[in-house]
Amino acid sequence: MGSAFDPLVTTSEEPAVVNSPPPSNLTQDDLKKIAAYKAVEFVESGMVVGLGTGSTAKHAVDRISELLLQGKLRDIIGIPTSTTTHEQAVSLGIPLSDLDSHPIVDLSIDGADEVDPALNLVKGRGGSLLREKMVEGASKKFVVIVDESKLVKHIGGSGLAVPVEVVPFCCNFTRGKLQELFREAGCKAKLRVKIGSSGGETAAVTDNGNYVVDLYLERDIGDLEAASEAILRLPGVVEHGMFLGIATTLIVAGKFGVTVKNRFG
Amino acid sequence: MGSAFDPLVTTSEEPAVVNSPPPSNLTQDDLKKIAAYKAVEFVESGMVVGLGTGSTAKHAVDRISELLLQGKLRDIIGIPTSTTTHEQAVSLGIPLSDLDSHPIVDLSIDGADEVDPALNLVKGRGGSLLREKMVEGASKKFVVIVDESKLVKHIGGSGLAVPVEVVPFCCNFTRGKLQELFREAGCKAKLRVKIGSSGGETAAVTDNGNYVVDLYLERDIGDLEAASEAILRLPGVVEHGMFLGIATTLIVAGKFGVTVKNRFG
Repeated sequence: MGSAFDPLVTTSEEPAVVNSPPPSNLTQDDLKKIAAYKAVEFVESGMVVGLGTGSTAKHAVDRISELLLQGKLRDIIGIPTSTTTHEQAVSLGIPLSDLDSHPIVDLSIDGADEVDPALNLVKGRGGSLLREKMVEGASKKFVVIVDESKLVKHIGGSGLAVPVEVVPFCCNFTRGKLQELFREAGCKAKLRVKIGSSGGETAAVTDNGNYVVDLYLERDIGDLEAASEAILRLPGVVEHGMFLGIATTLIVAGKFGVTVKNRFG
Repeated sequence: MGSAFDPLVTTSEEPAVVNSPPPSNLTQDDLKKIAAYKAVEFVESGMVVGLGTGSTAKHAVDRISELLLQGKLRDIIGIPTSTTTHEQAVSLGIPLSDLDSHPIVDLSIDGADEVDPALNLVKGRGGSLLREKMVEGASKKFVVIVDESKLVKHIGGSGLAVPVEVVPFCCNFTRGKLQELFREAGCKAKLRVKIGSSGGETAAVTDNGNYVVDLYLERDIGDLEAASEAILRLPGVVEHGMFLGIATTLIVAGKFGVTVKNRFG
């Protein structure tokens, strides 16, 4: 792990909040849960809260429900970022709304697939990047919760994909354009598929009825803002999974404890 | 009409091609047909041709079919920009393909809702802007055909809408963000609706299953590239109807004749 992510160091002007080290026999899921519980400490009664999607965010939604049942939180309105999270929240009895009714969100909590030292993220390996970006981009505070395996020196650095949501129309054309865009970074662009009920491969479909092209990058793509604009300029692209300048707080659970890092002091 | 669009003047280094003035009793549809027929003169046998959408482009597709039947054109492959044009071309027996199979298009011909003096366009009042932008953006040459009523001094200048294709999810939130973006230009953003079979209003749906937000602008929005990037950066936006730097040739049919204007000399 690079020194930028030494879990006992924070680059914000506020001191890092470090809990006592957890026992060393914790699983990755235990670490996710620790980060999620820490994030829910930021939730206050009366807040409109963006509810993330994925295995880490799920723990946060569970915890919010628990605190509501215990009466330690009241008057929470949840804004789910996917149909999956919507179903989870409904089953837990969390009152829900959407951005049309609540265009300003007080706080969102969600996981990420990658986090770089400037708190830029890759999200959407779970396929819900567009709704996540809408909700989290509309949030006054966005707390990202990860285990330490998600920290990277640069976006794409984990060797896993940067996802791009594309319209189904001529998706192979758009895939080719995306691969060409990042040719110098050794990009391989692949249409995301799933195994259908008949055993054959079909394109994976997002909540919005679109497809996903996964970008695998061999090298650093450099200027992320320029990369973002270039991707968005392709007509077949709906959105990409790089979340630049949106996260305000990062909570990392690792074998040496929990670190809280703020983007601004 | 502003002097930038005096139909006998061209700003390209090539001389304008001006036909003899047509009789003055021509209808708007006659003018569209004249422009369309002129554009089809650019089509050569063996070309991959992007087929536009709308009342003007329809005349060009008819004309290509006519020349194929007469044996004056051969081996044309059409790339339709909408399901409507696809159906028209199939009914006329024009061989068709798509961008997945033919990622490079030799020539596209399409109408436009507005054309500014730099050959920037507004398209998509017909609802097919995304597929049009994909095909026309992939074209070596893009010939725009309009009657003179479509010429404006600046984008949005006709008082009609600049359309933006958006995902249905929380479309009212996205509508609000778009209106806010161009507040200084007096923007009113409206979700495009259609009258359903029961007589009630429902959201108009594009070929890609998305909705359309129409932007009505009271004043010039200024830097179009900056406006484009700002619109595309909104997560709920799929694409907008400003076609910047894509058209290579403009054919205008007006009461004084036909003008051909090239973007580059």
